[in-house]
Parts: sequence; structure tokens; C-alpha cells
Amino acid sequence: MNYRMIKYTLGWLLLFEAIFLIAPGIAAIVYRERAGLAFLATILVCAALGALFIYKKPKNTTLYSKDGFVVVALSWITLSLFGSLPFLISGVTPNFVNALFETVSGFTTTGASIFSDVESLPRSIILWRSVMHWVGGMGVLVFVMAFLPLGGAHNMHIMKAESTGPSVSKLVPRVKNTAIILYTIYIALTLTQLVMLLCGKMSFFEALNTALSTAGTGGFGFKNDSLASCSSYIQIVVTVFMLLFSINFNSYYLAMKLKFKDAFNTEVKVFLGIVFVAIAIISADTFVSGVFSNLGDAIKHSAFTVSSLISTTGFATADFNLWPGLSKTLIVLIMFVGACAGSTGGGIKVSRIVILFKGMARELNRTIHPRQVKKLTLDSRLIDHEVIRSVNAYIICYILIFAASIALISFNEYDLVTNFTSVTAAINNIGPGLELVGPTQSFGHFDIFSKLVLIFDMLAGRLELFPMLILFSPRAWKKQ
Amino acid sequence: MNYRMIKYTLGWLLLFEAIFLIAPGIAAIVYRERAGLAFLATILVCAALGALFIYKKPKNTTLYSKDGFVVVALSWITLSLFGSLPFLISGVTPNFVNALFETVSGFTTTGASIFSDVESLPRSIILWRSVMHWVGGMGVLVFVMAFLPLGGAHNMHIMKAESTGPSVSKLVPRVKNTAIILYTIYIALTLTQLVMLLCGKMSFFEALNTALSTAGTGGFGFKNDSLASCSSYIQIVVTVFMLLFSINFNSYYLAMKLKFKDAFNTEVKVFLGIVFVAIAIISADTFVSGVFSNLGDAIKHSAFTVSSLISTTGFATADFNLWPGLSKTLIVLIMFVGACAGSTGGGIKVSRIVILFKGMARELNRTIHPRQVKKLTLDSRLIDHEVIRSVNAYIICYILIFAASIALISFNEYDLVTNFTSVTAAINNIGPGLELVGPTQSFGHFDIFSKLVLIFDMLAGRLELFPMLILFSPRAWKKQ
Repeated sequence: MNYRMIKYTLGWLLLFEAIFLIAPGIAAIVYRERAGLAFLATILVCAALGALFIYKKPKNTTLYSKDGFVVVALSWITLSLFGSLPFLISGVTPNFVNALFETVSGFTTTGASIFSDVESLPRSIILWRSVMHWVGGMGVLVFVMAFLPLGGAHNMHIMKAESTGPSVSKLVPRVKNTAIILYTIYIALTLTQLVMLLCGKMSFFEALNTALSTAGTGGFGFKNDSLASCSSYIQIVVTVFMLLFSINFNSYYLAMKLKFKDAFNTEVKVFLGIVFVAIAIISADTFVSGVFSNLGDAIKHSAFTVSSLISTTGFATADFNLWPGLSKTLIVLIMFVGACAGSTGGGIKVSRIVILFKGMARELNRTIHPRQVKKLTLDSRLIDHEVIRSVNAYIICYILIFAASIALISFNEYDLVTNFTSVTAAINNIGPGLELVGPTQSFGHFDIFSKLVLIFDMLAGRLELFPMLILFSPRAWKKQ
Repeated sequence: MNYRMIKYTLGWLLLFEAIFLIAPGIAAIVYRERAGLAFLATILVCAALGALFIYKKPKNTTLYSKDGFVVVALSWITLSLFGSLPFLISGVTPNFVNALFETVSGFTTTGASIFSDVESLPRSIILWRSVMHWVGGMGVLVFVMAFLPLGGAHNMHIMKAESTGPSVSKLVPRVKNTAIILYTIYIALTLTQLVMLLCGKMSFFEALNTALSTAGTGGFGFKNDSLASCSSYIQIVVTVFMLLFSINFNSYYLAMKLKFKDAFNTEVKVFLGIVFVAIAIISADTFVSGVFSNLGDAIKHSAFTVSSLISTTGFATADFNLWPGLSKTLIVLIMFVGACAGSTGGGIKVSRIVILFKGMARELNRTIHPRQVKKLTLDSRLIDHEVIRSVNAYIICYILIFAASIALISFNEYDLVTNFTSVTAAINNIGPGLELVGPTQSFGHFDIFSKLVLIFDMLAGRLELFPMLILFSPRAWKKQ
């Protein structure tokens, strides 16, 4: 383990965190909020510590594969620890675990909140929550890489560990340039949404928060009813952008290069197929069961909810906890599917599910013809054996972490659906679940231990399990 | 595909079914029930068709691996189709899907019933349900093999496809002798339980049904309250035997050979560990929450429930649907664990879960040291690469079938817990779930389509997925 290099990377990370904290700091000045002092203090701490850490660039900048995982896990934990300071210092919550929960929920783009009354929070704090979503969505280390020459060939390891989905492909030969392209697309899409929201007569503050939160597929809002009281125009814009941010950003790059066939690949098709079918069934179900008296409303709210949950954003325009059994069951299934790989969304990812189905078909084929070796392909490209292996490992770790978390959470004596969906919402980085963690509820009522379990799940979900699990292996901490 | 050989095997199977039908036939005569005619008719049909099918022994008796799977799947379907005739002919249910559901639930040792009032059923029908459990528990083709020289080296393929757990080991060089040993242990244990129940002053009829049902870890009972109104002695005897029938039968053989270390292997230890911890927590939880006013009762009912669900039997002495959140959540988790491999129990199986955990640790290790190849061992024996592969394939198929079944079931508009636990109870061959399929409820209220889905799940669960999935592959039906 290259400890010096890890310290160096964390140093830069803290400096970047200080920069991102400036936005809510400015908001505090504009709105003359005392929380501004909390942001100022946090900025100073991050900047000072960051400067100290980067003071001496290590000679050996090599990071091995496992170092990449450890750096990423430690970065996200560091980011969250310091990011929770504004909540603590400003006094919006005096409880450290609550502050950490909110921050982890922010950076991992989960959007599960411990606050039951969001409207009473200072505006600067609300903006910080949205900024965390935006930073966490694309990955903060990817951001650092885009602007900094960290040096060495280790960048790819970090990118692999922080990006979503089963495999990462560089768009251009250099990792740094790939990071720049991804962030450019990200910023452009966010700005487009911001403008479209402003056209809908949303205030700048609200539009900014909504755009940042949608972009990261986070889900923190500024109103207690999420987006229920917004106009239909705003709701439809958000629906569309939640889906846009769920699609692999590589597809946008390929589309710009006019490679439309590559852009509109199997994963995108399957993703849109699932979205369409789910909206159709849930619209029909909510309309027929009388939840909505007119079909237009049923379609609008179903489309919003499906897009919100499959993109793992977690915004709500309706309390789907009150919907009929069919809709609720499909909603929970969708929560597991998640977005496309290489997007800002969470969940298992559509491409992993496609690979799982293909793997199942191959295993069946193997049973029928044991000696026939059939290669798996996706979009007429061979799926690397390592990718299949990692997808299998991912799913198995996912189930084991999932089951263990439910067992640990259940000591709260909540009902089965609450236990099940709170872990579902955390590990898939969605935010709301059902029953006690439904869209009109908060996570504040869990005990400290359960909150720590959910914090682990949110981080594990965002970093796709392995980086967080490796922290528990004593072997990972040995020097090379 | 060797169609002639499949027909020949099915012929013998029908003859054996005819023999097993004699027991309830006799019961009908003893209790002077008109259902006796239904059994007589079914015996004649099975015997006639069986004789026709075995009339000409095929020259080529070779069955390939895939043929083994197909034979097993078709055998269980045939067995169920003909086994449902007594229900239809006797008129206890005029609905074909209901009769099939009950029969499949019987042979797969699930124990989920479509009858809400079991006590009104003829005694011969009740006995038939228990006999089906007993036959299905150890596997009917294993039984056929024990008594018949089907010839050829294909026996192992059939044994593999019908036995439970990730890998099958022959106790003795010949498959036929292995089958005889297993059935001898099975019969001895069943008789022991029968005698012990009779010592508890249970009537012969009730003791016989309870013993047969426990042995197959089935769960069909003869009273509407399952075993709630039985004496504590009976309940404790059943608790112990449910656990005994959940342990790998190889362990009993090894113990008889005085190889105690091999008999008390990792799987058995982990299994008993889970049982002990679960009983401890659930006893404490039900006692503290006031479900039971004295600790003795809490322990007795918790031990019964845990043993019943982890063994996937499904008997009940208490309505655990009314227990507090912690207990209910742990109960659901236990339902997935299931029994040991090579037992009559269902579920994922403890050994698979042990292998999954070991596989996860190895994957983590691989991420830390990519070039280090570490072999997996269990009880200081190497786990074959094919076994790991098949466990991974099993889990992935399991999840995909599970999710698809829930989606299909959800059109009933039942609540999430009912949808989730009905599939859990079916695919793990348990019987009762929670809410609308709780221990005091039945499965009769599902629509026909859902019942067909659950029938598939029960068969897929009992045959460990692949044999049932292969039936859907057009390639499996091609001639060699």
C-alpha cells in the first residue's frame, strides 16, 4: 500500500471539497444566513488540511489495483466526514451520526434524509445537499483527475473503482481526457435542465437545486412534499432529465460523434423498454384502482415515479406508498434494476442484468451440450471473461450484504416492508422506500446502529461494493 | 434425446406411483370412504399406462447429462399430473389447477395447500398428501433406482438432478447401493419418529401422517391449526425430527461408519449454529414483546418455528404472522437459508451459502492480490471449480426466477409481503408465508395464473432450477 500517495490524493480531494463548499457559502451570504460561518469554518479546515497533505508530492506515485479501491473508499469516507461539518457547526443537527448520514446520503446520491421538515433548513444547507449530489453523481475523484495530473498509470484503477457499471471503457486514450469529456457532458446537461426549469418560472434557487439534484440522480429536495406541488411542466422536465441522467454518458459522446448505432446500444434499449412497460402497467393499475381519477394524471405520476426510482433519484410527485399492490410490487422490483452503467444512477444496473440473463442462458446451454463452449456477446462484442466473473461476484456480494443489512436493521422492530425497503433504498442509492421510509417519511427514526448500517450500505452501493468490503480485509492494509 | 428410454423410465415411475397409491387406498377401505374408488381408478390408470410404457425395454439405455435433467423434470410433472387424479375424481376439488397445485405442493414437499378446511377432507386423501411428501422428500427416481436395474451409466445423472445441494457424492461405488443406503436411513428415521409419536399417545393415523410429513419436510397436516393443539411432547419430538431430516443423510452413514469428524462437517456446524442463534433471538424477542408470557413457551414455539422454516417443513404451533418485526424479518431470512444439502429439506441450502461466502472472500482477495490464485476448500477438501460455477449459476437463476415470479404474482393486487413470501414459500418448498399466505391461511385465493406460476416455482425449487428451466430450451428437445 502506497500510504504517501493515498495521503497526497486525499489532500487534493479536501482542496476540491473546499472549492465546492464555496457555493453554499455564497448562498449563505446572499440569504444572510448564520450557517455561512459554518461553511467558512469548514472551508478553512478542508483547505488547511488539504494544503498540509499535498505539501510534499510523493516520489513513488504508483497505485496498484487494490490501492485504487482503498483510495476511492477512503476518499468517499473523508469527503463525507468533512462534508458533515456544516450540518454540525450550523446546529441543524447536533447529532454526529445524523449529520454523517445526511452527508453520505448526499454524496452517494441516495437522497434519504434524516430531516422530516426540510423547509425549515437554511437555504445554504439545502444548496450544500444538492451540491453534494452533483459532485457525487459523476464521482469526485474523476473530477480531481480531470483537472489534475496525479501522474502515473494508476488513474484507470481509480476510475474503475469510482465509475458505475460492470466495465469501464475509456472514450479516448488518456484517462484525463475521458474525465474531461464526461464532465463536459455532465455540465452541459445540468445547465440545459437549469434553463428549462427557469423557463417554467421556477425561482433560480429552486431551479438550481432541482437541476443539481436531478443531475446526480440524488433526490434531496427543498420542500417537504418533494416535487408534488410543482407545475406539470416542471414535473415533466424533471421526468425527462431523470431518464437522461440514467443513460450511459458514453452514449452521448458516441451520438455526438454520429455513431448512433453504438450510442443506442442494447443496454439503452432494454432500459427504455423496462421504463415503458413499467409506466404502462402502473398507469393502468393506478387509474383502474381509482388512485387517479383521470388517465392523464395517472400517466404523468406513473412516468415520474418510474423514472425517479429506476434512475434511483427518489423525487416524488405522489405518495406511491398508497398505491395498489401491483404498482407497489413493480416499484420495488424497479428499485433493484437501477440505471445504465456509466450514468450517475445507482442500482444493480441494466447491463449487469442483461449479462446475468445471458449468463443464465449460457449455463443452460452448457448443461445441454457440456462440451460446447459458447462465448457471450453484447452488441456483437465479446464480453470479457473477467467482466462476467466480476458481475457474478458483484451479485453474490450484493445479496450477502443485503441479507446481512436486513438482519441488522430488523432489531428496530419495524415491519418487514420498512426493513426490506430501507435497505433497498440505501444500497441502490434511491432515497425513499415504503411504509416508515415512504416518500412522505424520513430516516430520522432509526436508531444509531441502523443508521451506521445504512451509511455503509449507501457507500457500498455507490462504490459498487468492493472498495468498501476491501477496507475490512487486513491484507489490504499491508505494505507491498 | 433418447425418447424411448425416457418413456421406459416414466413407465416404471407410474408403476411405483400405483404402488404408493395403495396406502391411501387401504385407508379408504379402513375408514369406509368413497374416495377409495378414486384411488382404485388412479391405481388402475397408472398401472395400465406404466405397463404399456415398460412393455418394450429400449436397446439403447444411454442417457446423457441433459437427458438426466429432462427425465427428472418430466418424471415429476408426470407424477404430479397422475397424483392429482384422486383429488379430482373424489371431488374434494373439481378444479384441475387446484388439484395440480395440491399435488405438486405434496411431491415437492412444499406443503402449501389450497384447502382452507383440511379437517373436512377424507382421511384417505389426507394420507395421500403425506405419502406424497414422503416420496418426494428423498426423490422418487432415487427410489426407482434403488429397486430397479435401469441399466447404463446414466444413473448418476438422474441422481444429480434429483438430489438436493450443490454436489452429490456417492457413498459407495455403485449408485444403486447408494440409493438403497439412503432409503434405509430414511425409512429407519421415519419409523423411529412414528414410534416416538405413538409413545406420546397420538393416534396411529395422526402419528403416521405426522411422521411421513416430517420426514419429507413437507408440512401438510391433518388439522386446520397445524400442530398447535398437540401436546408439548409431540411438538418437541417434531422439532427434533424436523432438524434431523434437515441434515445431510451422508452424515448419518458416516456416523454409522464411526467417521464422526467427517459426519459433523462444516455444513452441519453452520446449520446448527444458525438454528441456535435464530432460536435465541426469536425467543427473546417474542418473550420481551409479550407474545408469550412465559419464557418456556417462547423458547418452545421459537424452536419449533425456526426448525420448521429452516427445514422448509412448514408446520406451525403458533401464528408467527403476529410476531414482532425482528422475529418476522429473521423468519423470512431463515426461509431462504434452507436445510443442508443431501437432506429432504429445500431452500438455498447451507452448503451453497458457505460456498458463496468463501467465494466472496476469494474475490476480495483476488482484488487485493490479482496474481495470487487461491483454491477454495471446504472441510479441508478442494471445492471443485465446477461446483463453484454451478453454485453461482444456481444463485443467479434463483434470483431471476424469484423476481420474475413476484412480478407475475403481483397482478393479484395483494400486498407486497404476501407477494414476496408466497414466492419465497413456494420456491423454497416451505408452505406458509406471511400475511395472506400466513400459517393460518391457504393458497386457494390466488388466481389460476398465479397458481401456475407457483406450481412452476415449487417444482423449480425442489429440482434445483435447472431441470425445469431446460424444458423451455428448444435445443434440449432435439435428437442427439
